[in-house]
Amino acid sequence: MQILQVKQQLVLTSRLNDLGHLPLKALVTESGEVFVAMDPIGTKTGDWVFTIANSAARDAAGDKRLLTDLTVGGIIDDWQPEQK
Amino acid sequence: MQILQVKQQLVLTSRLNDLGHLPLKALVTESGEVFVAMDPIGTKTGDWVFTIANSAARDAAGDKRLLTDLTVGGIIDDWQPEQK
Amino acid sequence: MQILQVKQQLVLTSRLNDLGHLPLKALVTESGEVFVAMDPIGTKTGDWVFTIANSAARDAAGDKRLLTDLTVGGIIDDWQPEQK
Amino acid sequence: MQILQVKQQLVLTSRLNDLGHLPLKALVTESGEVFVAMDPIGTKTGDWVFTIANSAARDAAGDKRLLTDLTVGGIIDDWQPEQK
Amino acid sequence: MQILQVKQQLVLTSRLNDLGHLPLKALVTESGEVFVAMDPIGTKTGDWVFTIANSAARDAAGDKRLLTDLTVGGIIDDWQPEQK
Repeated sequence: MQILQVKQQLVLTSRLNDLGHLPLKALVTESGEVFVAMDPIGTKTGDWVFTIANSAARDAAGDKRLLTDLTVGGIIDDWQPEQK
Repeated sequence: MQILQVKQQLVLTSRLNDLGHLPLKALVTESGEVFVAMDPIGTKTGDWVFTIANSAARDAAGDKRLLTDLTVGGIIDDWQPEQK
Repeated sequence: MQILQVKQQLVLTSRLNDLGHLPLKALVTESGEVFVAMDPIGTKTGDWVFTIANSAARDAAGDKRLLTDLTVGGIIDDWQPEQK
Repeated sequence: MQILQVKQQLVLTSRLNDLGHLPLKALVTESGEVFVAMDPIGTKTGDWVFTIANSAARDAAGDKRLLTDLTVGGIIDDWQPEQK
Repeated sequence: MQILQVKQQLVLTSRLNDLGHLPLKALVTESGEVFVAMDPIGTKTGDWVFTIANSAARDAAGDKRLLTDLTVGGIIDDWQPEQK
């Protein structure tokens, strides 16, 4: 799993049907890398979260038919990013 | 999932049979890394999209026998890449 | 598998139910990259461990329904990180 | 999937039985990273190819019992690597 | 698959039961990144090997219940690392 900060919710014009109804969020690592994850938790912009990848991501989204490789698993209460 | 920009459609001289009939597109991350994805959406060059990896990529392509590890999941309406 | 050093236990405010009861630890690679892993071993901060990823991570956590993509597999007795 | 250039065929002294009879090729990304892939296509040194990873790689090699995580999926006709 | 050089065998103080009886080796890429793999081949320090990742790694270790995401697949006879 990785630690990322929630940046924004994505607005999609065309999308596959089996993405389900969860919001897709853009998240950023401490080093600035951007990922997209399904959010079954209801996170807010700025929250530090951890994400679950690959086959566990589909179960984490609540239905293993959902088309995701990354899902938010929880909000971290006390994360202090490294000073740089 | 990751956010990439569509660059071009690939033309293949030799290819495996179980790649199916979807176009293969070269896509580029904001940092310039190149990936290849199946495109069931019908994206155009310059579109910002998100991609789905690994086992979910096969379902996203519409048939889990298809030989893909990366499939376009949707077009992002409002993505602003970082200024650098 | 990768070699990481245990940094701290994570405290979560919101989390998915199927994360089970194992602690989630933040771990750091020699090059400073941070990951989160389930810890069925009972590691202490500062321990050097190796981690198991993806489908084997779920079995390593003791139940393949658990939502993890990274699990601690053991404590390394004699690891000398590179001098830099 | 990724785009790589074929560098050389590997000669192995000890190897597992379930690697099958396909040649193993060393391939290089545009940024110089080296990977090894099974080659069911019959590529030549210098060809630009795309590779398929993980579970789809095993099907791409022709038999899902084969021990591979990366298989050549096709030769790209018109790939122009970035000038650097 | 990736090409790595065998560095040392790991000595573990605490470990999961389903790691089986194969030695765990620390291996290094040409660029200095360290990984841990199960070794069913019997490699020696300094050997250049290729490694198999994820689900195929479990079959490569000889039993798909084994907890590994990386297994040595063979020793490369003629690998010349890049001069740097």
